[in-house]
Amino acid sequence: MLLLVAKLAGELAERVRQPAVLGELLAGVLLGPSLFGLVDLSVHSDTVTLIGFLASFGAIILLMEVGLETRLKDLLGVGTSAGLVAIIGIVAAFGAGFGVSYLLGKAGVWGTSWLFHVFVGATMTATSVGITARVLSDMGRLATGEARIILGAAVLDDVGGLLILAVVSALAAGALDPAALALKATLAIAFLIVALLVGVRAAPRLLDLLSRARVRGLLLAVAVSFTLLMAYLAELTGLAAIVGAFAAGLILAQTRQQGVLHERIRTLGDVFVPIFFVYVGLQVDLRGLGANTGPMLIAGLVLTLGGILGKIVSGLAVVERSTSKLAVGIGMIPRGEVGLIFALVGVQAGLIIGWQYTALLLAIAITTFITPIWLKRVLARAGPSGPDLGQVIVDADERGAPIFRERSHAPHKGPAHDE
Amino acid sequence: MLLLVAKLAGELAERVRQPAVLGELLAGVLLGPSLFGLVDLSVHSDTVTLIGFLASFGAIILLMEVGLETRLKDLLGVGTSAGLVAIIGIVAAFGAGFGVSYLLGKAGVWGTSWLFHVFVGATMTATSVGITARVLSDMGRLATGEARIILGAAVLDDVGGLLILAVVSALAAGALDPAALALKATLAIAFLIVALLVGVRAAPRLLDLLSRARVRGLLLAVAVSFTLLMAYLAELTGLAAIVGAFAAGLILAQTRQQGVLHERIRTLGDVFVPIFFVYVGLQVDLRGLGANTGPMLIAGLVLTLGGILGKIVSGLAVVERSTSKLAVGIGMIPRGEVGLIFALVGVQAGLIIGWQYTALLLAIAITTFITPIWLKRVLARAGPSGPDLGQVIVDADERGAPIFRERSHAPHKGPAHDE
Repeated sequence: MLLLVAKLAGELAERVRQPAVLGELLAGVLLGPSLFGLVDLSVHSDTVTLIGFLASFGAIILLMEVGLETRLKDLLGVGTSAGLVAIIGIVAAFGAGFGVSYLLGKAGVWGTSWLFHVFVGATMTATSVGITARVLSDMGRLATGEARIILGAAVLDDVGGLLILAVVSALAAGALDPAALALKATLAIAFLIVALLVGVRAAPRLLDLLSRARVRGLLLAVAVSFTLLMAYLAELTGLAAIVGAFAAGLILAQTRQQGVLHERIRTLGDVFVPIFFVYVGLQVDLRGLGANTGPMLIAGLVLTLGGILGKIVSGLAVVERSTSKLAVGIGMIPRGEVGLIFALVGVQAGLIIGWQYTALLLAIAITTFITPIWLKRVLARAGPSGPDLGQVIVDADERGAPIFRERSHAPHKGPAHDE
Repeated sequence: MLLLVAKLAGELAERVRQPAVLGELLAGVLLGPSLFGLVDLSVHSDTVTLIGFLASFGAIILLMEVGLETRLKDLLGVGTSAGLVAIIGIVAAFGAGFGVSYLLGKAGVWGTSWLFHVFVGATMTATSVGITARVLSDMGRLATGEARIILGAAVLDDVGGLLILAVVSALAAGALDPAALALKATLAIAFLIVALLVGVRAAPRLLDLLSRARVRGLLLAVAVSFTLLMAYLAELTGLAAIVGAFAAGLILAQTRQQGVLHERIRTLGDVFVPIFFVYVGLQVDLRGLGANTGPMLIAGLVLTLGGILGKIVSGLAVVERSTSKLAVGIGMIPRGEVGLIFALVGVQAGLIIGWQYTALLLAIAITTFITPIWLKRVLARAGPSGPDLGQVIVDADERGAPIFRERSHAPHKGPAHDE
């Protein structure tokens, strides 16, 4: 039912010239506790466990697909910009979140403890690359400079966000062991570097070997298993699972089997990715506000404004002239499920309570909802193709939008999946 | 991990000229409680819930794929044989199970109550079409007369098995309401007929409409949602979920989009179907036998023999001269997950206890394990193509085995997925 509603809502959104992902998010909100209450994620049941699993699988497949469409060389080529965007985005968003929280506290409609402000600031640093990646994928823009900078910066953002979350969690627990923190951060960064270095060398040979297999679908099964393993290892080292999935996609993109894998992962994505976005929508709960509706709305909207400005300025760090600074800044805005995880940690630490959580959720929701609309508009204005980084148009999706692929890749095997 | 182990075990099996599905089943037994104990399905946890869900999804996708490769007209063409095979299979297997159980009771190594014998007989009637369908699919024989008779008979078997299970459960509960039983059976049969009649008429128009959609993958998402809905409705009316999935596949096979859907469902199947077969293997638990090992083994082996003979004779009912009677009989042998469900109901009713359950599991396991080996051997002897029922060879899998499709279908869109 979730899949069907998501796809139909996505189709409806496309018909009124909005991104399909927006329809899927709204479908989640409508099905969730705020309105129809058909799915209540706060109740622990097997169904909720399954939906959560399917959503995670969808997010992993999405980032695997994004990784498969990204060339490592191009990602490293925008390394300077991505690094600067990530750093400025974290600092500015943290500052904006912290400042807004401080001012709201002074105005008497918000918490006042320093630790609380730090937590609000930390929540504002997160970047959920899923939403932006989906808009770029829907528009056939994953091979553009904007997309590479956003994806690179989002990965770095996750490493930075991890550090902040670790520090803040330690502060909340009343302890701060610099050695343990440094170890955790080193472990996470070392995992990514080692996985990429080993993977890029070993994967092409391994996949060539697997291509000679006798059983059907061994290549796809190994690729999916490898991606799930990378997602698991990423979580073990403290990173988000989707960062591991993205790295797995990057590694698989370096193999000769990139073309056939990409087509088949798209098929998996068509079924599971929409469930992830409905799931994000399901997280929004507008019930139980009552008398605190006023302060909640004020806090939520001011936080939203600070959160948007804090990330928009990060786009200014882009050094490439041909790349839209505004598009990169907008691409970094959505907090999505990463922001939700941060806020949830704050609740579990006893720092964020009741309607303050709803206000944070509102800010996370708005930043997540406006990005598709805004980004689509800015990209459409920036022209049909974006800067040429060596890609050729080899395919077109159902709406005629071009799908890019690098010239050096194996020729695409025909429009087998376009319905 | 399950997916990876399953695929590698399948590849290993192929290398020693055994069906891949056998490797997947054995991988399940090895990973299960009998040996490595890495997965224990008897413990209730989120992981076990998820594995069960993934396995069910895999079984549903498998039967959907089988349905997509079957033409309704051809299935009806073998209706007489399928009906006779199903009836003889049920009567003979029930008789064999009941008789063996009675003789074992007389010999003092088994239960003695009449109701117990009835339950053992009922467990022996079930046919798990999944294993046979997988062997036929692996050999590219789904379009043959043998395959159609087996699939048709298995669907009828399920309706018959439902009746027996309902009667036996009512007997165990000490009540037997003929009116309620008749109502349930009528409901199940009416659902199948109505779904097929309405579906075959409505689906082509609906899918033509969906093909004009703007969002990516709407067609696939609707097809999968429809199949899951049919599986759910089948369970609601008392049938097995996989029967509903098979009916959904039959309906979708009548549309112009059959070709593209089949390719994309194959991709989903490559990831999820192996998990189902590992799951079946995981059900086997050889621990805790102790002093009862002797009686258990005797009972299990005698039951296995009766179960095999009871189904083999059903092949004699085939009226078509060009069709292998032996292959059809062998195809009906595996009890698989349907037999497990029957045995489980007996345990829950307090009729089957301790090592008697293990003996039934042994019989179910052996019938399930020998079918792939035996069927593959018999089919290979029967010649490369089987009787011509209008199919042409349009594709070949990785091992060069032909994949049949009907002449009237839309041309196949190239070997996009063959790795």
